[in-house]
Formats: sequence, C-alpha cells, structure tokens
Amino acid sequence: MVRIAVDAMGGDHAPLAIVRGAEAACAEKVGEVVLVGDEKVIVPLLKARSGIEVVHTPVAVEMKESPSVALRRKRDSSVNKAFGLLKSGSVQGVVSAGNSGAAMAFAIVTLGRIPGVERPAILTIHPNVLGTRSILLDAGGTVDCRPSHLVQFAIMGNVFAKYALGVEAPRVGVLSNGEEETKGNELTRETHALLKGADLNYRGYIEGTDLYNGTADVVITDGFVGNVALKVSEGMAEAIIGLLRGKIAGSLRAKLGYLLLSGVFKALSRMVDYSEYGGAPLVGVDGVCIICHGKSNERAIKNAIIQAKGFVGKNVNERIKDAMQDYVSLTKAGKEH
Amino acid sequence: MVRIAVDAMGGDHAPLAIVRGAEAACAEKVGEVVLVGDEKVIVPLLKARSGIEVVHTPVAVEMKESPSVALRRKRDSSVNKAFGLLKSGSVQGVVSAGNSGAAMAFAIVTLGRIPGVERPAILTIHPNVLGTRSILLDAGGTVDCRPSHLVQFAIMGNVFAKYALGVEAPRVGVLSNGEEETKGNELTRETHALLKGADLNYRGYIEGTDLYNGTADVVITDGFVGNVALKVSEGMAEAIIGLLRGKIAGSLRAKLGYLLLSGVFKALSRMVDYSEYGGAPLVGVDGVCIICHGKSNERAIKNAIIQAKGFVGKNVNERIKDAMQDYVSLTKAGKEH
Repeated sequence: MVRIAVDAMGGDHAPLAIVRGAEAACAEKVGEVVLVGDEKVIVPLLKARSGIEVVHTPVAVEMKESPSVALRRKRDSSVNKAFGLLKSGSVQGVVSAGNSGAAMAFAIVTLGRIPGVERPAILTIHPNVLGTRSILLDAGGTVDCRPSHLVQFAIMGNVFAKYALGVEAPRVGVLSNGEEETKGNELTRETHALLKGADLNYRGYIEGTDLYNGTADVVITDGFVGNVALKVSEGMAEAIIGLLRGKIAGSLRAKLGYLLLSGVFKALSRMVDYSEYGGAPLVGVDGVCIICHGKSNERAIKNAIIQAKGFVGKNVNERIKDAMQDYVSLTKAGKEH
Repeated sequence: MVRIAVDAMGGDHAPLAIVRGAEAACAEKVGEVVLVGDEKVIVPLLKARSGIEVVHTPVAVEMKESPSVALRRKRDSSVNKAFGLLKSGSVQGVVSAGNSGAAMAFAIVTLGRIPGVERPAILTIHPNVLGTRSILLDAGGTVDCRPSHLVQFAIMGNVFAKYALGVEAPRVGVLSNGEEETKGNELTRETHALLKGADLNYRGYIEGTDLYNGTADVVITDGFVGNVALKVSEGMAEAIIGLLRGKIAGSLRAKLGYLLLSGVFKALSRMVDYSEYGGAPLVGVDGVCIICHGKSNERAIKNAIIQAKGFVGKNVNERIKDAMQDYVSLTKAGKEH
C-alpha cells in the first residue's frame, strides 16, 4: 500500500482544502494519506477517517517566510516532518502547497540530493496544442544557474518524460531568444555546447512561442526564466479570459454566444487550470516530492496525491538516480582523459 | 514636413507589404516616406508615387544573416542606408522589419549611442486589462545585461512612458520571480538596489502574472528574459485562439455561438495583434528607429510609420538625451564623493 504524506498546514486554503483533497484522494482508493499538521485543527475537519492518519505538529511555515529563516527555526514544521516520514520510509511521497522555497530547502537538508545533482529543479507539466504534454524545468527552484545545472536538469527531465509520461525519445530543447545557434545568452550558449555532446535527443534552442506548440517534450531553462515564462502564460490566459468575460457581460448577443460556447470555455479553463495537473515534482532530491501552487484547491491536492502515487509506482526517482550515475561516470571519464 | 525612411527590403513579406504600408501611411498624410532598397523591384510595385521617394541600393541583409557578418560586409544595405539618411538629417526616423540584430548593430555604428547609454534596448508597448498600455524593455536588444544597463533602460522607459504615452508618474517595476525583495537573481538584486536610489517612481519587483494586469507602466528586464516573456505570451495567445477555433469547428452549436461572439473574438485578436502597434522603438541610439516584427504586414508597416512620426513630433529622443545627461552627472557626482 502506497502512503503519501501531505503538509496539511501549507497553502492559501490550508488546512481545509488540504484535508478535503486528502479525503477525495482516499475515496478514489489512492492509498493511505498521512496529514501532517496541528491535530487540534485537522481532526475536527475530517469527515471520514478511513485511509487517513494524522501526524501532529503545531509548527507551520508561513507563505511569505524566508526559507533560510524557516530552515534554521522550523525543523519541526509540518513540511519538514513530512520529509522526515519519507526519509524514515514510513511514507513514499510528500505533497505540499506551502512556501515552495522552504519546502525545497527542507527537502535538500532532510532528504538530500541525488548523487551527481548539484541543484534540484521544479518540473512543471503543461498541455500543448498537439494534445500531448510538455515539461519545463526549472520552474523556479534555482534562479542563478550554471551550465552544468542545466545539463543535469536535461538529464532528469528526459528520464521524467520517458518514464512518467511515456514519451519514447523525448525531444529536449533549451529555451532561448531565437532558434539559431548564434542566439542565446552566456548561460544558454555554454549549456548548448555541453548538451550537443550528451546522450539525449537534443534539438537545440527553442523559442518562447514554442512552449505550447509541442516542439519539445522537455524544455530546459534556469529557475528565474522558467518562473517568469510560466507566470507570464498565466497572466496572459487570465487577461484573455477576463477580456472575453468583460465583453460578454456587455452584450445580450454575446451572452447568448457565450452560453452556446460554454463547453468550449470550460475546456479552455481546464487547459490553463493548474489544479488539473496537481502539482510540480521537485526533481533532484532523494524522494518523491510534489510542490503545489499556493492557491491549490481540493481538486489540485487530490490530483497531486494521485500524481505522487504514480511517480512512486513508476520508480521515476530510481530511474533518475541511474541516469545521474551514468552522467557522473561519463563526466569523470571525460575529466580523466 | 516629417520624412521617415523605410527599409523596403527587410521583413518576411518585403518588399510588397512594405511598399503597400508606405503608400497607406502616405494616404493618411503622415508625411513623406523614403523607401530604401532595390529600385528595380520597388518602383514597379508602386501604385501611387505621391509623397514617396525611392533611394536605391541593391544590397539587402537576409533575415537569418549574422549581424556581425552583415556589419562587416553590408555597409551599403537598405537598412544601413536608411540610418545614413537619418544621420545626415535627410529623414527624421527609420522603420525596418528586417533582421533586428543587424538593424541594431547598424544603428549603433551609424547613429551612435546617446551619451550615458551603454546598451540600447528594444521597447515594446502592449495593452493591459485596465485598458491602458504598459511598456517592456529590453525585448531582445541586449541579452547579457549588467545592472547599470537595466538602470539605463529604466530611465529611458520612464521618459518614454511620460512623453510618448502621456503617463504622469510612470510606475517602474523590475520583472522577477516573486514580489519579495528576497526573490530575484543576481542581476535583478543589484538592479533593485540601484533603482531604489534613482529619481523614479520605482515600485520594486513585479511578477510575470503582472505583465498584462497594469501593475507597472514600465517593466524592466534583460533582453533574454524580455524576449522569452513576449514570445511565451504570443505562443499562449496562439494556443488559446487555436484551441477555441478547433473546438468551434467541431460543433454546430459552438459555431453558432462563435458567430454571435465574432465581435468579441475580433477585439481579442486586436489585443494580441502586433500589427496594431506597428513596431518597437529601439531606444538608446541617437535617432528615432522603429523595429518591426519580421512577419509585419502592410498594416503593421503603416502603423510603424505613424508611430515614428509621433515620436519625432513629441521629441522623445531629445527627452531621453536630457534624462541621460542628468544620470551621467549624478553617477559622476556619486563617484567623486
């Protein structure tokens, strides 16, 4: 039986949305869920206790708290206690919608990094117009990256696309300001040179316009650019949907059109709705960890728990370890020559 | 009478779309247009010659050509000849939809930079949900930036928002991966520290989600991130519109809804349609220069010519010179202390 620990105190809608999401996941026979947090708050919220265990800690990391401060002062926080359960083998995965910087810091300290990984990355999965899914990393884990970090992201993203999404030979691209080799900045140019020699289906640079058209299965970028790219997408989608709604409210003719198109708008909302995908795996740490959007609702939490169980079942983390071991051997061999 | 030189050989749809755009601008009494390019190709395309002059050169820079190669070998190209006309005072502005890297390189060499500006920037103007306009710079001119470059972009963007768009005290923000001061990368953190001391209505970090919600009038970022942000927006809008079209084609009910909503979709297309805005001013070089999208159509070229005339009329370039002079004096004074 797979057991997933969920940080019950993390997220804008915690603890209620987290508790409801855990119950919904249990109702779908996902496995057992361990809710970590203040039992005085959590237990009264529980409707059903079947498949749910509560591990008590009164300490929570605030959403705006500095990760380095949390790291020093909140070893007993719900998120870190969840990682402790994973480290000890009592659960096989962790889900948190709390402060993502703090979650990453605690994951590194408590779970440790996979050998060969210098920096972990947040990996996001998003739909594209081809109807398949593309992944992007890093979505905000490591903002100041070196070329070797991006190479490691590419290796981990490749394994993820292959084993978690079932893509046979994932096409890997580096996000840049143009397709030509002469484009890019210092970081992407060095990364490009390294990736050309890697054992990957590497396709070179892709542009921002390619993010949603399925040109690449795995999009590599540093955490600063990745975060900006995803948030710009979110802002653009919100602006378009808001504009449509505003125009529609102003006219009877448009209102009728909207009613007839309601199925279409629902499909559209789903495409840009993070809750459909649950959360973003933190890759490079030694354990399955899903970071959810701060504003996660019940549905997002439920999907993240299902996602976590899927990664456990597919042994994604073990595959990443194997790939990183090969990378370390090759890098060493390269240096010895 | 304002005279604008247009690179007739630059752009995916050159020379036809350029010639037609010039004619359309002249028909709206914008002033005189000088088409620079191969007269054997241009003259036969002209329907009307009133207000249009042709300056001949058979040399054109290709869209994919390396800017540094073009710079060495194509001094006689249409785009550089247009800058020559601006330098000599024969025209007051230049419009080009050709290779933007080459246009920037020639602009720097032929026009020179405004004193105090280390690197020019491409400035884009885009609508936001408030119904006003925001500007972003750099959209791709300088990919590897230092903090001082971003400070200069902020000064130029501020002047531009004030005098070209009429914003009283433009709110300036730095694009980052979070609003908190602890966020950002090495570049944004140093820039943030410098901008806090600048004589600007500086509001700190903004996020990607803020790009279209009007949180800032002037968004500052390096050319790599700016290019990615704009192209991701373009890709997102294309994906949403494509998704809507696809869903609509599949159902009669949805088709009827679409017909009723056609006015709304037109408004939406206009919002994300670059041709509405003409082009992007290249700021920091000594002269009015508008860089257009490579795929510019007649309408985009016409609007860019109108835009160029507007900037000439509002003395935007002189205002930037004044602001940069103050910046240089302050920086010097700071160093002498």
